[in-house]
Amino acid sequence: MFDDVTVIGAGRAGSTIAARLRERGVPVRDGAALQLLCVPDRAIGEVAASIEPGPWVAHVSGGTPLSALDPHERRFSVPPLQTLTRDGGAAQLDGAWGAVTAETADGLERAQWLAETLGLQPFVLADDKRALYHAGASMASNFLVTLYRAAEQLFNAAAVPPAALIPLMERTIENGFDLTGPIARGDWETVDRHVAALDGTGLEPLYSALAEATRP
Amino acid sequence: MFDDVTVIGAGRAGSTIAARLRERGVPVRDGAALQLLCVPDRAIGEVAASIEPGPWVAHVSGGTPLSALDPHERRFSVPPLQTLTRDGGAAQLDGAWGAVTAETADGLERAQWLAETLGLQPFVLADDKRALYHAGASMASNFLVTLYRAAEQLFNAAAVPPAALIPLMERTIENGFDLTGPIARGDWETVDRHVAALDGTGLEPLYSALAEATRP
Repeated sequence: MFDDVTVIGAGRAGSTIAARLRERGVPVRDGAALQLLCVPDRAIGEVAASIEPGPWVAHVSGGTPLSALDPHERRFSVPPLQTLTRDGGAAQLDGAWGAVTAETADGLERAQWLAETLGLQPFVLADDKRALYHAGASMASNFLVTLYRAAEQLFNAAAVPPAALIPLMERTIENGFDLTGPIARGDWETVDRHVAALDGTGLEPLYSALAEATRP
Repeated sequence: MFDDVTVIGAGRAGSTIAARLRERGVPVRDGAALQLLCVPDRAIGEVAASIEPGPWVAHVSGGTPLSALDPHERRFSVPPLQTLTRDGGAAQLDGAWGAVTAETADGLERAQWLAETLGLQPFVLADDKRALYHAGASMASNFLVTLYRAAEQLFNAAAVPPAALIPLMERTIENGFDLTGPIARGDWETVDRHVAALDGTGLEPLYSALAEATRP
């Protein structure tokens, strides 16, 4: 579909994507038929505007609309739905999904090609649903970090090893997010004891908001 | 240490623990030297009081103090730090940790024996730190379910597949809870767009509490 790709940006996304393209035999070089912007969200508009019209232009940002690629009309986006590290290499994309967004059948076909070439399982994301999608992804990933940090703080306060939380969290996912524990049992006395124990930790507002959202 | 164990209760914990004890060659039968209460938290006091003093008595509840085992003095607790299903079998305990709590060296030695026999990696939990510990465990497991359900709701609203969240959440754990995404980048405009997108979902209070707790 594209004989070569120009990857602009060498951060977490850019370095991972360039590694995967090379691994799949797609040359990564300047002046290619696809200009793939892997720059910070805020820089996308400026970088896109600096590209001479002609080639396809795409970005890999979950939260940024296609209009950021103005004035280019042959455009699409393929954000990998994965948290990446700079040194993790191409294999980080294995098993992950990718949101493909385009405004034309041509664009969609190219977006699907890129997702598949990167090893991502593609799903179509409407450009006007991006904020909902991105909020959901942040909830699942960024706030999972927040939960762990809060639990880690409580385990440290209880003088028990936070590492013990890892198999619990992994199994919660493996078990399909089956709710167990006090709230599932309707045991609000235990929840009240938790809130009382949180006194002085600064975590009561978070705990209460989560308990409220968990209530059936 | 104990030649046999009486497992009282056949719910998620009781059935899993009895299966593991049998697998390890420890007879599970009435009238044993260890009476192991695997009953709902609220029933522990009543069931303990109904046992004739003499044998060791223990429970497997993370949130319940040892005093619930009154009037028994030879007592301890070993709650597996894991979310269990009724049909998951003994293997569910593999890789999990277990909090051991006792008031005497004798009790602690027995609690450690039970944890190790169950295949749990033991750590000592002080009885008066139980509420902190249990709040941390709930944060990590029960509220992980809450996060997923919220993210799932947003993905459904965006007409994209919630299954795409699973590799993201698993990798977030594998990567040691390294924070990526808009908050890590200090990109509060994106966070504001998320909050605006949540209008009508009922998830704004949860999102805001989590964003606030994530702020560096």
